Amino acid sequence: MSILINNVLLNHEIVDILIEGNKIVKVEKNIDAVVDTLIDGTDKAVIPGLINAHTHAAMTLFRGFADDMKLEAWLSEKIWPNEANLTEEYVYWGTRLACLEMIKSGTTLFHDMYWHTDPTIQAVIDSGIRGVISSVLFDSSSEEQGAALRQVALETLKKQHLNNRIQISIGPHAIYTNSRSMLQWAKKTADENNLLIHIHLSETKTEVENAKSLLGCTPVEYLEKIGILGENVVAAHCVWLTDHDLELLAKRDVKVVHNPASNMKLSSGISFRYNDLKAAGLTIGLGTDGCSSSNNLDMIEAMKLASLLSKASSEDPTSMSVQETMNLATVNGAKIFNINAGRVEVGCLADLCLVDLKRPDMVPNHNFLSNLIYSSNGSCVDTMICDGQVVMDHRQVKDEQQILEQAALCAEKLFYKS
Amino acid sequence: MSILINNVLLNHEIVDILIEGNKIVKVEKNIDAVVDTLIDGTDKAVIPGLINAHTHAAMTLFRGFADDMKLEAWLSEKIWPNEANLTEEYVYWGTRLACLEMIKSGTTLFHDMYWHTDPTIQAVIDSGIRGVISSVLFDSSSEEQGAALRQVALETLKKQHLNNRIQISIGPHAIYTNSRSMLQWAKKTADENNLLIHIHLSETKTEVENAKSLLGCTPVEYLEKIGILGENVVAAHCVWLTDHDLELLAKRDVKVVHNPASNMKLSSGISFRYNDLKAAGLTIGLGTDGCSSSNNLDMIEAMKLASLLSKASSEDPTSMSVQETMNLATVNGAKIFNINAGRVEVGCLADLCLVDLKRPDMVPNHNFLSNLIYSSNGSCVDTMICDGQVVMDHRQVKDEQQILEQAALCAEKLFYKS
Repeated sequence: MSILINNVLLNHEIVDILIEGNKIVKVEKNIDAVVDTLIDGTDKAVIPGLINAHTHAAMTLFRGFADDMKLEAWLSEKIWPNEANLTEEYVYWGTRLACLEMIKSGTTLFHDMYWHTDPTIQAVIDSGIRGVISSVLFDSSSEEQGAALRQVALETLKKQHLNNRIQISIGPHAIYTNSRSMLQWAKKTADENNLLIHIHLSETKTEVENAKSLLGCTPVEYLEKIGILGENVVAAHCVWLTDHDLELLAKRDVKVVHNPASNMKLSSGISFRYNDLKAAGLTIGLGTDGCSSSNNLDMIEAMKLASLLSKASSEDPTSMSVQETMNLATVNGAKIFNINAGRVEVGCLADLCLVDLKRPDMVPNHNFLSNLIYSSNGSCVDTMICDGQVVMDHRQVKDEQQILEQAALCAEKLFYKS
Repeated sequence: MSILINNVLLNHEIVDILIEGNKIVKVEKNIDAVVDTLIDGTDKAVIPGLINAHTHAAMTLFRGFADDMKLEAWLSEKIWPNEANLTEEYVYWGTRLACLEMIKSGTTLFHDMYWHTDPTIQAVIDSGIRGVISSVLFDSSSEEQGAALRQVALETLKKQHLNNRIQISIGPHAIYTNSRSMLQWAKKTADENNLLIHIHLSETKTEVENAKSLLGCTPVEYLEKIGILGENVVAAHCVWLTDHDLELLAKRDVKVVHNPASNMKLSSGISFRYNDLKAAGLTIGLGTDGCSSSNNLDMIEAMKLASLLSKASSEDPTSMSVQETMNLATVNGAKIFNINAGRVEVGCLADLCLVDLKRPDMVPNHNFLSNLIYSSNGSCVDTMICDGQVVMDHRQVKDEQQILEQAALCAEKLFYKS
């Protein structure tokens, strides 16, 4: 399979892009090649596929089900009781809906943590994008549940080489939902299998206060003490970091994922220390979190929120410039998941999007990246290629109507008929 | 002209809507009527046209021209020197672009403050939506400029009855750019002609600190002292209010406009006291501000930002619920501009939008308003009716390509060829 994209804006130049197999093989002017698929890039800009470094994909089914609530009541009354009724069918269609939404807003890879990894993996394969899938681990409710979830994680692990668009990671939910031995099991399993660990960390003030009172230290210090921190740890949120936490994260080269929408909507906190984390040399990715909290999977909106929140909370309008913001969602994500992507360059994976420039929010074009992040939203993505395959062509995605109908039906059955 | 919309979702019911002239005359099930235009509302929801209570429309030409800068350098190096070169032609096409963008994201009325009101008014008339237009007043640079701008304001005032989609307001820019006598002239002119006054107020900490040191009081106290505050004052921003300021605004029934995007992007401040203003019974509208600062005119995005910022800054996730957020952009705006709109009800102006429900970000439909505000963005608006006329039909707007081309050309001439 080969694709030639003609006359597309890349940075400040009009170029052609040649894709062979799943790689970008040429980026230059006037490429002459016989290809399977020719795409006209006129009035389009090309960007790398975006990387959503933290979400819970199938929670699309919970979109708009419970808003404007305090976190504790939201979790205990709305989320957990309904999650208990999830079936493989619901998770499959919830994840298909998530993938559809991500395709339509420019995301080619997402990092997931959820229940029922089999249908999640199948949905990613069927959708055409990439997923790094963690089976969630909890053992705070019972040791039996912990044992069962460890078993699911081990079964999931066997899927690591099922498809080149699938990676597996190990997903201990948080320090407050897992015993020390479970966290250490997760670390050992991840290290032995060369996998990432996906965990929520220092998301709320309550989490940090409870850790201090129950464990005598911050959540980050606790993970250091029990030997979990390391370069394969992907820590979502990290809103409430002390200076010492920051030193530990930097020393262990932990990967940090910022989730501005859910941090704001759930009032988790606005003081994500972007400038300090950057100064410490940490790799920072960007995520949307799940649709239950934030309520979409639009990484272009997430970029705007991240930049605006950084400027607002630091009282410095030069904080998180447009290029830095773009890096969070592209090159930094690629570094976290160790894939040769996040850039439109020869040798990189052919994961990219064509963005429509003939829209009011893209005019005038003084600065394309500024227009993309500050002015537009996911709807500007016209065409997506992932792993060398066209997954969206002029906003048409395979099976779209069926996915919308099936996901709506699953939500109906989950919440109102079970 | 009559329009019948069939089978559309309004709140939680499927209804038909009959429009005659510029009014909604029936909202009920199964309307039987012979009409000029029949619109199929299947898989659509109807919402009132949104009201953008503070912007500078023609600043679309500045979109992306200068981001990530400190306010003072941004104004003095990038904005003011280029504004001096604006022509009537540039303002016309800049405003047409703004109206196009507003139509495509659901806004039927905007409150403008800018230079060159003649082409602004013409652009609003040609676009088919409503504008409340203030000619900006400044006299801090020179008394001659002040006199000239008063003259423009008086000429603009004569257009008050030119078209039923046009209102005029009086626009003294701010206390720090106008003398006491200019502010008092604005007040007298507005009162005598039954017009609104449009002013920036307590936008930045610097504005408040300077007022305290130069005038011995806060900006709000100063306007009270010199007799400006009143129910016809529309005060944009109001980020830095003291308790006494809040009492004065409430006592005088001043209308307040929240601009979350520009307050965040320019680091003006995050502490807009929404809950306190609401408790004091003040009417609060919502605005995008101009594209030079915030960088689009999407009121659906502005609603999400307002709600998320309120939850984040108050540390209360129940703050600014989805219905309250919708009110800011609809009924509150209608109250500020004294028009019978902001609701889809019999007797109201036929200013409304049909929103597409067959999109990933609208599925499942547990709560339509939540999906609209927290999940979607302006691109969900499929059809718009303003003043009883269809101004967008399945996302097709008259003259769209010409507007994009002409606006891009004007930006080119303004910044690079003058």
